[in-house]
Amino acid sequence: MQKIAVIVAGGTGQRMGATIPKQFLLLNGKPLLHHTLQRFLETWTDLEIILVLPEEHIKAGNEIIMDLQATERVKITRGGDSRFQSVKNGLLLVKEPAVVFVHDGVRCLVSHDLIKRCYQQTLNKGSAIPAVAATDSIRIVNGQQHQVIDRNQVRIIQTPQTFLSELLLPAFDRPFEEKFTDEATVVEASGKEVYLIEGEFTNIKITRPADLIIAEQVIASQGIL
Amino acid sequence: MQKIAVIVAGGTGQRMGATIPKQFLLLNGKPLLHHTLQRFLETWTDLEIILVLPEEHIKAGNEIIMDLQATERVKITRGGDSRFQSVKNGLLLVKEPAVVFVHDGVRCLVSHDLIKRCYQQTLNKGSAIPAVAATDSIRIVNGQQHQVIDRNQVRIIQTPQTFLSELLLPAFDRPFEEKFTDEATVVEASGKEVYLIEGEFTNIKITRPADLIIAEQVIASQGIL
Repeated sequence: MQKIAVIVAGGTGQRMGATIPKQFLLLNGKPLLHHTLQRFLETWTDLEIILVLPEEHIKAGNEIIMDLQATERVKITRGGDSRFQSVKNGLLLVKEPAVVFVHDGVRCLVSHDLIKRCYQQTLNKGSAIPAVAATDSIRIVNGQQHQVIDRNQVRIIQTPQTFLSELLLPAFDRPFEEKFTDEATVVEASGKEVYLIEGEFTNIKITRPADLIIAEQVIASQGIL
Repeated sequence: MQKIAVIVAGGTGQRMGATIPKQFLLLNGKPLLHHTLQRFLETWTDLEIILVLPEEHIKAGNEIIMDLQATERVKITRGGDSRFQSVKNGLLLVKEPAVVFVHDGVRCLVSHDLIKRCYQQTLNKGSAIPAVAATDSIRIVNGQQHQVIDRNQVRIIQTPQTFLSELLLPAFDRPFEEKFTDEATVVEASGKEVYLIEGEFTNIKITRPADLIIAEQVIASQGIL
């Protein structure tokens, strides 16, 4: 089936303490977003990308696509005020039927293997939401109260959140709600179940300077990890 | 008040895929545990350490203490079959009253600042459990079912979990239960409330090869993080 990755890179990088938005920070001499696009483009030659960017970053996005020699395979569209709206804008360009990967632009370490596993599970079950176990104790706070939850029951959610277009597109045909923190929550709100898949500990989201250092090292040592 | 750090290093390193237990893996040429002890020893000159090790690692532990020239300030005791039992063994050596820091041997990046803040809050409130916000979506799984939880309510728990000895020692005077995943859960089981404190994103537990790479880089760049 057709494979489309909707890559969302709308962040303004507040948490980095940098003026450059984090998706354009350099990792081994290339913007993070370059690495992210490359991981998807390399997985299959027939995969297409819809890259969702804020208006002011579209020019920089185009430069990355040219550098990747991928102008034929990547379309750029404008982001919205929320993650939900940005993904919704991206989905307007999806031609059905397809397997749609919705991915964070700053998760630049995603592996070909995880992308392929998400595809396969989505063909079988309709969705694949990468998740990893928690290694630390987790508590839920509620005002001044807090309580521990069983660590074995906790999963940390990653992307690419992957769906059949026939599930994902109708789910996004609704107004934004605060509880829509990712695509899985939107699809669930449409009454459909979503299915987890084993993610990867190295598939981190670059949100702080320390993460960028990790990413450089993971790339440098990818063979041994 | 007297300051005692109970540092627990009982893991066998299964997750590392290494034959060396992770607390003895080298970081900048020194075992992880060397760095961990050093962070505490440097914070106050009157702090004492109780180091809890499996029988077979006591010799290696003694070498680290000699290398740190800290034989006067560090006592070694034998660990038990569980984290709970290991901490319990360590607490047998605590002379009250004291502020007791219970710390993972493999969290070698803990800062002087966090240790000092834990001490201060413990003097004021009786305990300090370092916790950081989650940056990813979190789900709770229950068999085949799973549901998202509000990310703003999730806290990832770290160490040093810090307590007044008058709270901690009586709490450990009970048999082990499965739900005792850390010291906070033990103190809560004794009917006492525990208090969170802001932890540090760099205060990671070294459990996988990627973590060791992170740790090297955090140490190398400590000035900028």
